[in-house]
Amino acid sequence: MSYKAPVKDMLFNMKHVAGLEQVARIPGFEDAGLDTAQAVLEECARFNESVLAPLNVAGDLNPSSFHDGAVRTTPGFKEAYAQYAEGGWQGLQHPADFGGQGLPKTIGAACGEILNSANLSFALCPLLTDGAIEALLTAGSDEQKRLYLDKMVAGQWTGTMNLTEPQAGSDLSLVRTRAEPQPDGSYKLFGTKIFITYGEHDMAENIVHLVLARVAGAPEGVKGISLFVCPKYLLNADGTPGARNDVHCVSIEHKMGIKASPTAVLQFGDGMAASIADSAGPGAVGYLVGEENRGLEYMFIMMNSARYAVGVQGIAISERAYQHAVAYAKERVQSRPVDGSVAGSATIIHHADVRRMLMTMRSLTQGCRAMAQAAAAAYDAAHHHPDAEVRAQNQAFYEFMVPLVKGYSTEASLEVTNLGVQVHGGMGFIEETGAAQHYRDAKILTIYEGTTAIQANDLVGRKTARDGGALARAIAAQVSQTVETLRSQGEAAQAVATQLDLARKAFVDVVAFMAASSKTQPNAAYGGSVPYLMLAGNLVAGWQLARSLLAAEAELAAGNDAEFMQAKVITARFYAEHILPRTQALASAILGGGDSVMGVAEDAF
Amino acid sequence: MSYKAPVKDMLFNMKHVAGLEQVARIPGFEDAGLDTAQAVLEECARFNESVLAPLNVAGDLNPSSFHDGAVRTTPGFKEAYAQYAEGGWQGLQHPADFGGQGLPKTIGAACGEILNSANLSFALCPLLTDGAIEALLTAGSDEQKRLYLDKMVAGQWTGTMNLTEPQAGSDLSLVRTRAEPQPDGSYKLFGTKIFITYGEHDMAENIVHLVLARVAGAPEGVKGISLFVCPKYLLNADGTPGARNDVHCVSIEHKMGIKASPTAVLQFGDGMAASIADSAGPGAVGYLVGEENRGLEYMFIMMNSARYAVGVQGIAISERAYQHAVAYAKERVQSRPVDGSVAGSATIIHHADVRRMLMTMRSLTQGCRAMAQAAAAAYDAAHHHPDAEVRAQNQAFYEFMVPLVKGYSTEASLEVTNLGVQVHGGMGFIEETGAAQHYRDAKILTIYEGTTAIQANDLVGRKTARDGGALARAIAAQVSQTVETLRSQGEAAQAVATQLDLARKAFVDVVAFMAASSKTQPNAAYGGSVPYLMLAGNLVAGWQLARSLLAAEAELAAGNDAEFMQAKVITARFYAEHILPRTQALASAILGGGDSVMGVAEDAF
Repeated sequence: MSYKAPVKDMLFNMKHVAGLEQVARIPGFEDAGLDTAQAVLEECARFNESVLAPLNVAGDLNPSSFHDGAVRTTPGFKEAYAQYAEGGWQGLQHPADFGGQGLPKTIGAACGEILNSANLSFALCPLLTDGAIEALLTAGSDEQKRLYLDKMVAGQWTGTMNLTEPQAGSDLSLVRTRAEPQPDGSYKLFGTKIFITYGEHDMAENIVHLVLARVAGAPEGVKGISLFVCPKYLLNADGTPGARNDVHCVSIEHKMGIKASPTAVLQFGDGMAASIADSAGPGAVGYLVGEENRGLEYMFIMMNSARYAVGVQGIAISERAYQHAVAYAKERVQSRPVDGSVAGSATIIHHADVRRMLMTMRSLTQGCRAMAQAAAAAYDAAHHHPDAEVRAQNQAFYEFMVPLVKGYSTEASLEVTNLGVQVHGGMGFIEETGAAQHYRDAKILTIYEGTTAIQANDLVGRKTARDGGALARAIAAQVSQTVETLRSQGEAAQAVATQLDLARKAFVDVVAFMAASSKTQPNAAYGGSVPYLMLAGNLVAGWQLARSLLAAEAELAAGNDAEFMQAKVITARFYAEHILPRTQALASAILGGGDSVMGVAEDAF
Repeated sequence: MSYKAPVKDMLFNMKHVAGLEQVARIPGFEDAGLDTAQAVLEECARFNESVLAPLNVAGDLNPSSFHDGAVRTTPGFKEAYAQYAEGGWQGLQHPADFGGQGLPKTIGAACGEILNSANLSFALCPLLTDGAIEALLTAGSDEQKRLYLDKMVAGQWTGTMNLTEPQAGSDLSLVRTRAEPQPDGSYKLFGTKIFITYGEHDMAENIVHLVLARVAGAPEGVKGISLFVCPKYLLNADGTPGARNDVHCVSIEHKMGIKASPTAVLQFGDGMAASIADSAGPGAVGYLVGEENRGLEYMFIMMNSARYAVGVQGIAISERAYQHAVAYAKERVQSRPVDGSVAGSATIIHHADVRRMLMTMRSLTQGCRAMAQAAAAAYDAAHHHPDAEVRAQNQAFYEFMVPLVKGYSTEASLEVTNLGVQVHGGMGFIEETGAAQHYRDAKILTIYEGTTAIQANDLVGRKTARDGGALARAIAAQVSQTVETLRSQGEAAQAVATQLDLARKAFVDVVAFMAASSKTQPNAAYGGSVPYLMLAGNLVAGWQLARSLLAAEAELAAGNDAEFMQAKVITARFYAEHILPRTQALASAILGGGDSVMGVAEDAF
């Protein structure tokens, strides 16, 4: 199944939802207007449609494999990665100082979606490198930046995040990997890390591991964790890769999906280094990033970048599954439509239930995309706007959006990829059809970089209860303004207004409950945390689609691009009528269901 | 992961929900009271827990394989099947006249759940045989019954359903397989059938194919389809398997799940018969079942049996996934509970969101089980009650239940198996953990034996619109009675009453809409058909759990089995507070969203 990047929808969002022209007024982004966006997206589409999308099935059929400490990626991946690096794609959002193109996230994130739609397994390698670059940019020393960033931004070396250990998954306070200070100021790392995406591979000449570990004598828990940079090959004096460091891949996982992406178990300091003499005894040589015991704080920089990016993965796989299903629905002939619009058997896209499934897929995908692009624009303003207050406001909004983009878009991708299989009927269950791969691949997205529950904890605790729900209410007030505007417009807009306002009210009620209850009735609050995240994500995606509808109506009135704009109006309306009402059920469960969550005795399970 | 059959919950349902004691008052079922049920279920549990459950993972790792026309099932399956047959399990629900045990479906269906929980892929073989037996019992000639039924009821031979062809999936009017009448009264069949579950295998000495085909000159469409019995080995005069019939497996599918179950492409009449001389030239010899051109009607007997059974598969895999998740949640230690109930890190079952997931899994599973058991009791009364009016009423209720049991229980199983993976976190995505297999296996359940949309069409057209919604309203009236009873009870019952009544109202509104609109606004009605099915299934499952709550409260008042009964109360309440509110969102989408379903132009997709 070929893939065609939804460049038009992305440009629509940049113009009407994210406000790229405003981003382009920020100093440093002057060249990043809509023309640039279009040129970049079209080139990005060309590369991904032709080079990476055709390798997606190959990655599933011939996953990465592990032999004698080495990982061989899917045939074709290494060559494709070389093209990816050569094309400068890794540097898209990174500073020109280190060889990047310095584009805003508003554009970069859309390119990320295209890359992930084309090949989710491949895209994980650049995704992790992006996170590692951000962490080093923020917390690395000048020397570390000099040594690593040029190479990473160029895609010559890749990056990894080493958090998880067998006993420490969601709970990083349990990290045990230890770092022993050395006389030269470096550290020796000892421990086992699991679930390390692209922790070992053959696509780049070096791998830069960022590792959470404990320095001897550090405090218990998360306040005793430090961050280290630990390259696979230690660097020579001239910065080129030299001796093999004592960090080794001991196995890779056998997974349900994203099979081409090697998920490594890494052993730090098992003394297996090939040139153990050079590297002065066992232990993986690592260098402290920033200050001791502030590792989790730095890792959160990386994680927040990665969480947003995983949300985009959800949108990306939804888009791919949607295109797959649409193509089948336009081709498969079966049964006569109930409305008699076709005399005999028709392609199944004529059937109301198939249409309902496709519209659900479409509206969820476009809604999450609009939400993610609005969040990206806030990120750009938060990081680059000259006015500190504007920066602070946007930062707060962006931080509220991260759990929604991550949690809601990925949960939505489970629904979308499920419907993608369903549209195919029996053929969907046959692996050769390809729809099943998306279903299998998508399932990791609600788990890694923090499960949906972890995102929801963040939303309840840090993002809602901490300020007593003030920011959430401010967002709801913005939704109200959109509702008012919708009410002054035509029939479709008014239909959307009704549902959007009901959803807003549900949100406001739940926010009040969370602000009041997270401390006093923690089980009721946290038992409702994922439903709250789903409610909030649903609302914000529907809100951005409602804003899209207003823009599309204006374009229609101006006589522009009728088919596209009409589809945008109907898609927003479908979302409002079919998806937004779920907020009522979620609010009811959160507000009325607190007692039954923990009621069954452990032994009765 | 071991499996433990939920015998206690099943017996509770038989006593309090399905009313087994009433079934046992029907002539012929006098011995099928609760004591018998308990003895049968316990023996069934023993067999399945020890013999079939341990083969479930093996079936995934070593699927059925195909070489030179033959299918080799997973190592261990053949031996297990021999034990299954020897134990008399195939004959559980079939008439004593043909060697069966003649137990009511109320008991038999529960055994079916246990079998499917133990090993979904294995269970498909008996499931299809059951359907073929029912079709022959109803429509077969005395000679056909004599020749086939003893062997099939004994599990010596297995049965298949041959409906689908490459161009004819949901739309059976497109069936092209042709049947040519022969001078001796038999027919020769020519054509290709796909997706034939256990269409070829090595577990039994003969395979009895029931095949839809067209006799030359038959009317177009579904009214020109006849049913044939077509054994893999033709029968000798003494009824033993003789010459190889000209029906051959040409390949089996490579599927996302249920990998041990061979899904065959069967070629009827390609002239490959080993003893082609014996069988008098090419063409698969088949024998007409019943009358010509009434094949679809007979096949519906088989399909209705199979649809109910697939619904039970949904419950079965949900139960297995639930047990898997509970075991992990009781073992995995991670993070401190938000309520401070444990000082340090606790097993994750102490976390509110994990509990919410487990309760969702548990309440959906128990709700669907209660619904299926209530339906089974109606089936028994419909088929065996001495009073014709009681039979007719129960038949109508059962037929209303079939699309709900099939559609809702299987859709629920997608949610449950998804949560099953989610509870495991990153480990859930690793195949060796086993949770992923359930997620992959379950996805076929919403597709085969009629997709959820096909069930929903049946619910809207034949089960709701045809009688103007009368039966649906009668069911709603019964729900009202339960609501009244709940309102006279304690706090939990009253909380359930509130939600159940809201759900009932939503159902009644949608029933009125469907009755009024299925002809006048067919796209709005059928675009809302799956949401209507989900609403109706949700309501009926919640209703049966509400009845369970009343029974459990009575048992508690009598001082019986406090832990189990309290858990039953909380589970019903959780379902009411967390799952039933979804009916509001569904009703809103159905009643208000008709226009946006078909609004986007085909080219704009």
